[in-house]
Amino acid sequence: MSGAIPHPFDPLSGEEIQLATSVIRKAHGDAIHFHVVTLQEPRKAEMVAWLANPSHGHRPRRVAEVVVIDPRVGNGHVYDGLVDLKSQRITKWERADGQQPILIVEELLEVEEACRKDPQVIEQCRISGIAQDEMHKVYADPWTISHDPRFGSGTRLFQGLMYFRPDVDNCQYQYPLDFHPIYDPRKKEIIAIDIPRVRRPLQRNKAVDYHHLYIQNEGGYRTDLKPIYISQPEGVSFNVKGRELEWQNWKFHIGFNYREGIVFNNITFNDKGNVRPIFYRMSLSEMVVPYGHPEPPHHRKHAFDLGEYGAGYLTNSLSLGCDCKGAIHYLDAELPTQTGQIRKIENAICIHEEDDGILFKHTDFRDNSTIVTRARKLIVQHVFTAANYEYAIQWVFHQDGTIQPDIKLTGILNTYVMNPGENLQGYGTQVKKGKFLVRRHVANVANLFAGVNAHNHQHIFLLRINPSVDGHENTIHMVDAVPSDAPVGSQDNLYGNAFLAKRTRLETTGQAITDYNGATSRTWDIVNENKLNPESGKPVSYKLVSRDVPNLMPKEGSLVWKRAFFARHAIHVTKYADDELWPAGNHVAQTSGEPARGLGAWIGDGTQSVANTDIVLWHTFGITHFPAPEDFPVMPAEPITLLLRPRHFFTCNPAMDVPPSYSITPSEVAAKKAGFNTTDRVSKLAAMSEDTCCKPPKL
Amino acid sequence: MSGAIPHPFDPLSGEEIQLATSVIRKAHGDAIHFHVVTLQEPRKAEMVAWLANPSHGHRPRRVAEVVVIDPRVGNGHVYDGLVDLKSQRITKWERADGQQPILIVEELLEVEEACRKDPQVIEQCRISGIAQDEMHKVYADPWTISHDPRFGSGTRLFQGLMYFRPDVDNCQYQYPLDFHPIYDPRKKEIIAIDIPRVRRPLQRNKAVDYHHLYIQNEGGYRTDLKPIYISQPEGVSFNVKGRELEWQNWKFHIGFNYREGIVFNNITFNDKGNVRPIFYRMSLSEMVVPYGHPEPPHHRKHAFDLGEYGAGYLTNSLSLGCDCKGAIHYLDAELPTQTGQIRKIENAICIHEEDDGILFKHTDFRDNSTIVTRARKLIVQHVFTAANYEYAIQWVFHQDGTIQPDIKLTGILNTYVMNPGENLQGYGTQVKKGKFLVRRHVANVANLFAGVNAHNHQHIFLLRINPSVDGHENTIHMVDAVPSDAPVGSQDNLYGNAFLAKRTRLETTGQAITDYNGATSRTWDIVNENKLNPESGKPVSYKLVSRDVPNLMPKEGSLVWKRAFFARHAIHVTKYADDELWPAGNHVAQTSGEPARGLGAWIGDGTQSVANTDIVLWHTFGITHFPAPEDFPVMPAEPITLLLRPRHFFTCNPAMDVPPSYSITPSEVAAKKAGFNTTDRVSKLAAMSEDTCCKPPKL
Repeated sequence: MSGAIPHPFDPLSGEEIQLATSVIRKAHGDAIHFHVVTLQEPRKAEMVAWLANPSHGHRPRRVAEVVVIDPRVGNGHVYDGLVDLKSQRITKWERADGQQPILIVEELLEVEEACRKDPQVIEQCRISGIAQDEMHKVYADPWTISHDPRFGSGTRLFQGLMYFRPDVDNCQYQYPLDFHPIYDPRKKEIIAIDIPRVRRPLQRNKAVDYHHLYIQNEGGYRTDLKPIYISQPEGVSFNVKGRELEWQNWKFHIGFNYREGIVFNNITFNDKGNVRPIFYRMSLSEMVVPYGHPEPPHHRKHAFDLGEYGAGYLTNSLSLGCDCKGAIHYLDAELPTQTGQIRKIENAICIHEEDDGILFKHTDFRDNSTIVTRARKLIVQHVFTAANYEYAIQWVFHQDGTIQPDIKLTGILNTYVMNPGENLQGYGTQVKKGKFLVRRHVANVANLFAGVNAHNHQHIFLLRINPSVDGHENTIHMVDAVPSDAPVGSQDNLYGNAFLAKRTRLETTGQAITDYNGATSRTWDIVNENKLNPESGKPVSYKLVSRDVPNLMPKEGSLVWKRAFFARHAIHVTKYADDELWPAGNHVAQTSGEPARGLGAWIGDGTQSVANTDIVLWHTFGITHFPAPEDFPVMPAEPITLLLRPRHFFTCNPAMDVPPSYSITPSEVAAKKAGFNTTDRVSKLAAMSEDTCCKPPKL
Repeated sequence: MSGAIPHPFDPLSGEEIQLATSVIRKAHGDAIHFHVVTLQEPRKAEMVAWLANPSHGHRPRRVAEVVVIDPRVGNGHVYDGLVDLKSQRITKWERADGQQPILIVEELLEVEEACRKDPQVIEQCRISGIAQDEMHKVYADPWTISHDPRFGSGTRLFQGLMYFRPDVDNCQYQYPLDFHPIYDPRKKEIIAIDIPRVRRPLQRNKAVDYHHLYIQNEGGYRTDLKPIYISQPEGVSFNVKGRELEWQNWKFHIGFNYREGIVFNNITFNDKGNVRPIFYRMSLSEMVVPYGHPEPPHHRKHAFDLGEYGAGYLTNSLSLGCDCKGAIHYLDAELPTQTGQIRKIENAICIHEEDDGILFKHTDFRDNSTIVTRARKLIVQHVFTAANYEYAIQWVFHQDGTIQPDIKLTGILNTYVMNPGENLQGYGTQVKKGKFLVRRHVANVANLFAGVNAHNHQHIFLLRINPSVDGHENTIHMVDAVPSDAPVGSQDNLYGNAFLAKRTRLETTGQAITDYNGATSRTWDIVNENKLNPESGKPVSYKLVSRDVPNLMPKEGSLVWKRAFFARHAIHVTKYADDELWPAGNHVAQTSGEPARGLGAWIGDGTQSVANTDIVLWHTFGITHFPAPEDFPVMPAEPITLLLRPRHFFTCNPAMDVPPSYSITPSEVAAKKAGFNTTDRVSKLAAMSEDTCCKPPKL
């Protein structure tokens, strides 16, 4: 890409990042720690003007947004800055007092080493049953301290979630320790250790692992799974120029940043030659994972994985035929290091097509005249690892105009040690029973109920959409399926079957704060009231169909409730403003939630109009997870999905020109004609004799 | 299969059906009309005994269950009978007075021809604007009359939903007519016509079709979709003997009947050598599709597609590479004709595997030690056509022990004609605008709002499970995610984050009648309280996770509410009894719902215990559909899904022995070893230059 002119939505290239950091270092010294060096997204007004006339319009400037810590002053001063890359000038440099920027990998790796060397930690390990010469087997998963009123927000702090590995290859989450060291990266020392009232010593029970060395030792892998091959010998159906992708009438730009990972911009659909805007920007904007055990300090376990750690920073490098199958296109990511150099994640994003079963089908029962058309979908994916947990974020585009954010949760449960016979009071599940070694001289009763405690938790995601459904003036309508008010037997409802969609126009930011209602199958429509569908006479819209919408379990007034304003309700709507991207605040780590930053601040008194204007839709969804042994030691992927469906957007099914596998009309049936047939001739009957079962034929 | 001893769960073979019908015809004459000739499923007590000892135990007898109409007597007497196939004796012959058996295809085909010839219908067509010489272009979709108090249940009647096709190849649902003839098959005549107060003449607007002749004429098919090939050169991973399938530790019998289509029996999972029962029987048991327009006679549109028409009878014959892709195994279905002969549906059921993305993944952020294991799923599918609508029913089995009923809705909307400018009052959507031809001399204003009205409707499905989770004594627990009762700041909930699963044991049939609650992410566990998971100490269970659970929109006391007892609530539980299979009554057509038959009758006063006994779980789920132009003229598949997940059933993730694509441990990373690698080498990078975009390389 070096030398090419970047698209204004493109992430900063490695060269641009280094240019920005060199400008900063020149001005403020080499000791600066870079936490964020990212594209300041083009101001929307400028960008919209350019998009209307990209060949001759004024191209938005490339600006780097930076967040740094200057460790030389005070507790480490935090600055928010902007660097104009063309002029190489710093155009903003503001101290963010009492705020803590996003955690970066260099910091995270410090915590463990500090724990292993700290005398107090060594002492706590001894109490847990770990000898000093075993300290290299002690691990700390580094988390932000969340918010702890003892320390406030002014001092940057991490907590270590502590584990032991009898063998370096063991899954550490089966050997949790009971104490939590707190690390100060300025002082480079452990400044406190949270020690529970009731101690829970390490349990050195037999390992249950998931990697190949363990499985091979425990009976080996199953041998009855035959390979499935997926191939596209004629090539793929999408094309990517730079980061702009075209596929099946869709076109969009695929961005990427440290925080959200994948970002889509300028999503359009070519409707028979008419390129129609749908969303100006779409991303997963924030997350929170509150844990449900009330015993301190477990209340501090509620990671904002995006705002505190960054889905981009945590993104995996994917590999062909492994994470992704078929014909794959990858995009890399370039991110800054703490010192202002480049960390490149190869294959950070994978893009591929999949067959998606039946797109539509109909058979006339009179004569078996038939059409069967198979569906194709396009998937844009990244996977990120948040310490123990993995999130595979798939953005699925369908030929019928549907966009489907699809998340698979896998990885490993966050765990805590439990004592023999300990009553978990319903706040967690013993996912693994402990078996004390006899040499530990524990009474037999211990064998019954000791083990690994996986706490109840929620995974709450926030989808952010700046819609542009046929234009930038959009409105959210809440839609509830309700029976008619007319009583059964009345003139208007003689047989009682009348029902309809009750539509509530969300006029203001305050009124737009709404919850899911399963009883009315509630949905929300993103409507352009200024444009009517010529067939139905109804305004064009995209409907949000989302069913995995749990209530926030932490109570009103709780720490999580305060910090995660967005998680209190299913829907918030704000008026679009440049830079209102981060719903839990620009800097999330160690916030108390008081006063509200981000979404809570933007909504304010709730009086701002969000009707027929440039709006942002914030949708909270997710799952509540009560762990079970099946989730351990590694969790089979759990799916969460939702749909954004065109309603009254197209004048008819927009995928009728997808070539059918088979189509034959009544007149062709009558005339014994063949119809239209593109049936896949690679598909085969499965061989199914006893012979082939046991000895499948080799091709 | 001729000559082979059938498995007791096997559907009746063609030979067995003909044996049964010949016995009946010998006893009751050749004029008998056969509506049902199906396997009387083996009595459970006998069957369970045999399953425990299949080689030497007493094999349950083969018994045919028959439902016939003897058209020679009265209004056509209905009989329920049983034929013991070994002794060729009729062991039951009971008159079902005032009841109407399921509709069969021979009856359905009669209605249209009768309509075309009937002078009253011809007159109504004339009023609609159809000339007498166009009567061959008039079509009637034959429906049961539902329940009409004018006629009651004693006389078998059908209603015709009337349409016109200017051309035989047109989608008729864009040319609905406004009147409803009622046909008496005994008299072979139209006995009444329901004519609306406000007439709505036929609209001969330009066709919008979906078949290839139309699309090719309108610009042709898109050419940018490259093929995807799916192949299994080493064969498939499942094996079918007779109708028993084994795959990835699963084993089950795949039955099929006229009514439910696919039926699963004796679903077990081989848990490290221990074959553990999960469900004794699982099927989709009933459906109702209520329409929401109150104007009579639209209230009669609420098809019980399974009980009134039969998902088996309506099942499509599937074709390789078209409905199904990859390596496919098919099972045929043999069903009786009206005269007792055999109608064979080839490829009624398709069975295949699919790659299913990531099964589990974890990366240690410290050293990038990783495991990635890909998932495989097995799909058992049938597709049935209910006049305008298609239902693709997929039963998906996952390697982690999850069972996923997955339904795709496609086909064509049921439609009704609307007048220019007509106010649909929210009960339907104009999915296509009408354009009157100038020669019809209609005022210009007509062009604005005339068209095709698709009424609001629901698709409500009923899943029936007779569970056998580690034994036949099971209990349903309702599980709600709730915050702790303890106030924020109190000793038990200092930071307010405490939450847990509230578990309600459903003790009686009455107490078990429960609704979905989105606010608590409500689920229901099928629990064996007699067996504890050795790791967690909790009883073994399967959890029903279902989020598409709309309230029944027809009001309490309405006709639909009366007839579809099962649809009133999300969950019912009954004690298992042989023959309690049909929740809306054995004979559903023309029932009034009073008194309740089927589920309502079995539940009765609600006092029967359903705790720790052999139970049946009935789960109602589905969607509420407010049509839009995108659904027309053929609807892109709309998905509905739910999960049945093992919870506390296995002692750990049961799929850890699935060979990973890639696994490397920390010690291997440190030693620079290669790890374990089965990465698919067929996957390729997508070619992505401008050249390959426009001219994809041929292999």
